[in-house]
Amino acid sequence: MRIHVHQQSLAAALQQVQRAVSAHSTMPILGGIKLTADTDSLRLIATNQEIAVETYLAADSDTLSIEMPGSIVLPARYFVELVRKLPDPWVHLTVQQPYSVQITSAQAAFLLHGFDPEEFPRLPQIASDQPFLIHSDNLKDAIRQTVVAIAAEETRPVLTGLCMKFDADSITFIGTDSHRLASRKLFLQGGPEGASEIAVVPGKSIHELARLLPEDDTPVTMTIADNTLLVSSDTTRFFTRLLEGQYPDTSKIIPTTFKTRIHIRRDPFASALERALLIAREMQNQVVRLQLQSDRIELSAHSHDVGRVSEQVPLDQFSGDALTLAFNGKYMLDAVRSFDGEQLTVDFTGTMSPMILRPTDGQEYLHLVLPVRTV
Amino acid sequence: MRIHVHQQSLAAALQQVQRAVSAHSTMPILGGIKLTADTDSLRLIATNQEIAVETYLAADSDTLSIEMPGSIVLPARYFVELVRKLPDPWVHLTVQQPYSVQITSAQAAFLLHGFDPEEFPRLPQIASDQPFLIHSDNLKDAIRQTVVAIAAEETRPVLTGLCMKFDADSITFIGTDSHRLASRKLFLQGGPEGASEIAVVPGKSIHELARLLPEDDTPVTMTIADNTLLVSSDTTRFFTRLLEGQYPDTSKIIPTTFKTRIHIRRDPFASALERALLIAREMQNQVVRLQLQSDRIELSAHSHDVGRVSEQVPLDQFSGDALTLAFNGKYMLDAVRSFDGEQLTVDFTGTMSPMILRPTDGQEYLHLVLPVRTV
Repeated sequence: MRIHVHQQSLAAALQQVQRAVSAHSTMPILGGIKLTADTDSLRLIATNQEIAVETYLAADSDTLSIEMPGSIVLPARYFVELVRKLPDPWVHLTVQQPYSVQITSAQAAFLLHGFDPEEFPRLPQIASDQPFLIHSDNLKDAIRQTVVAIAAEETRPVLTGLCMKFDADSITFIGTDSHRLASRKLFLQGGPEGASEIAVVPGKSIHELARLLPEDDTPVTMTIADNTLLVSSDTTRFFTRLLEGQYPDTSKIIPTTFKTRIHIRRDPFASALERALLIAREMQNQVVRLQLQSDRIELSAHSHDVGRVSEQVPLDQFSGDALTLAFNGKYMLDAVRSFDGEQLTVDFTGTMSPMILRPTDGQEYLHLVLPVRTV
Repeated sequence: MRIHVHQQSLAAALQQVQRAVSAHSTMPILGGIKLTADTDSLRLIATNQEIAVETYLAADSDTLSIEMPGSIVLPARYFVELVRKLPDPWVHLTVQQPYSVQITSAQAAFLLHGFDPEEFPRLPQIASDQPFLIHSDNLKDAIRQTVVAIAAEETRPVLTGLCMKFDADSITFIGTDSHRLASRKLFLQGGPEGASEIAVVPGKSIHELARLLPEDDTPVTMTIADNTLLVSSDTTRFFTRLLEGQYPDTSKIIPTTFKTRIHIRRDPFASALERALLIAREMQNQVVRLQLQSDRIELSAHSHDVGRVSEQVPLDQFSGDALTLAFNGKYMLDAVRSFDGEQLTVDFTGTMSPMILRPTDGQEYLHLVLPVRTV
């Protein structure tokens, strides 16, 4: 293999794949990035056996020229930083047998030891003839809005993942840790007719996917096969293993009636919750108490050791009964922050029944937070 | 105590003192900040018994109004973040006996528990009738340029500090870990006649002092008394305990003749060192080899496991003998980066004798790096 590649393009491609590198594996080769030069492209792959990322650079005179095809695995720990620190816009890579590469750029010359590319794990072969089609920024948004509610603890492993329910025309994203739930429905650009599939993506993987997705309308396809989710764009493929186990049916726990409904502006509500949490975060369950009145709410928190706080927040609209209840302030703040609009609708069904937060302008999106019992 | 204070002014003052707060002391009160309101000012003090920082806010209609003098100690962990998160530009503080404070700002009302201000440690009483006078930015520069060479390890405790030699017209800053040395002389705006004092400031303290000093020509005074250094500006006083023990006489180890002298541009030299360190950092002593020729130097490093690197850097000027030696690349890079100018002069005295780096334009500033022996 002998190639000439633009430093910034190579550095950008390495940045894409490097988060899939296994930093502390007992298999040193998983700490590497596999480079494969074909006659017209350079492919980079990294995998930690849980996720894999593959990205392509097409040969063209501005960014990449392939003099001789070939392949090698290079240790990410050195190669990524080295490429970033090279002095010249052009980098020349020449593989030397067995398994090392000569890297030159202006006056700097490196020889870096690598690994046999034949030893590198293969990516799953996934046929994606009927994928689900979506825009990158929409997918990224839906993940961000729901991943916050997934479980951090392993008590019920399936809840540590984000559930995606694929239908022919939509994907519904659900995250829940059994104290709160976030649900977002996203309509597809296209999907296979009559489709009905469920994928539960591990929390770590979904964070990496969100990081990788560009913040624009790049078309992205999603395919599920062999307990693996594949998310592809023109230049990048992201693979993740899925969680096994039955995801709970959450459709029945979302109340359809309410006793009290308020409209409240997002930012003042979030700021007041942040202040209440300064005190509440010291307490088990981070308990914040909420008093609902006709034109305002009062948030309060109390800690024997630290002190107490109370604050009133005006309401834009109120209907139904006055009510007092308590909730985990952190869960409520996570929910409130996840909304984009200026105003929220919050429905209350009773002191020990779920609260439902929705954007007032009615996207297919909601957060459910359970109250907590206080003495 | 009852005061009304502008949120940003209070937050800025808290930021000044909070780094002196003791986060993990067995004495909870040291995790606090003492507020003292006199008739015309608010004083904030924090100390971890090693350093202390005191800052003043003068009463004036735009930032501070004192309704009733008084004093309290408030836990930094809550108070600092709370002030930062308050909704209104104005904060109202009312001390309630015993030892708590009511904090209100717009609709938000806190009660925060504190400590008896009488229990807070007193600051040392240091008379500063004949202080050393200096500009803040100069002091900050001199610290930055020399602190890099102090010892990280406690083998010889006095070397973990930065040595300041005060004379009537100058301060000389010296840092050394016995493998390298940095020395910088700073001429004073004023100092006591016939003065000759030495202060060795602990490494942690000197970093905090540098952080606190503004990047401008604010006048600053320095006073040494009772094994304490006091650095004062109009609004802030910084106290630090000094290290005990005899600081070594370093004047004799700086060579006065040389065999080879080069002039080299700082940035290309620093970048080439960074690249060599990518390989060298894996090796004990981070060994980088240097070959001196008439118009260029060659830097190289080698690691059996990782690979090797070599790079040539052009010289602006060369006089004396060709030479090959090796050094700790990290020490050399620290030294090179500490210079501000475009060009450095490096003097060589032999393969096992010190290298001396100076700015070519000849400030009172040098770095000494000892070569390392290689096989």
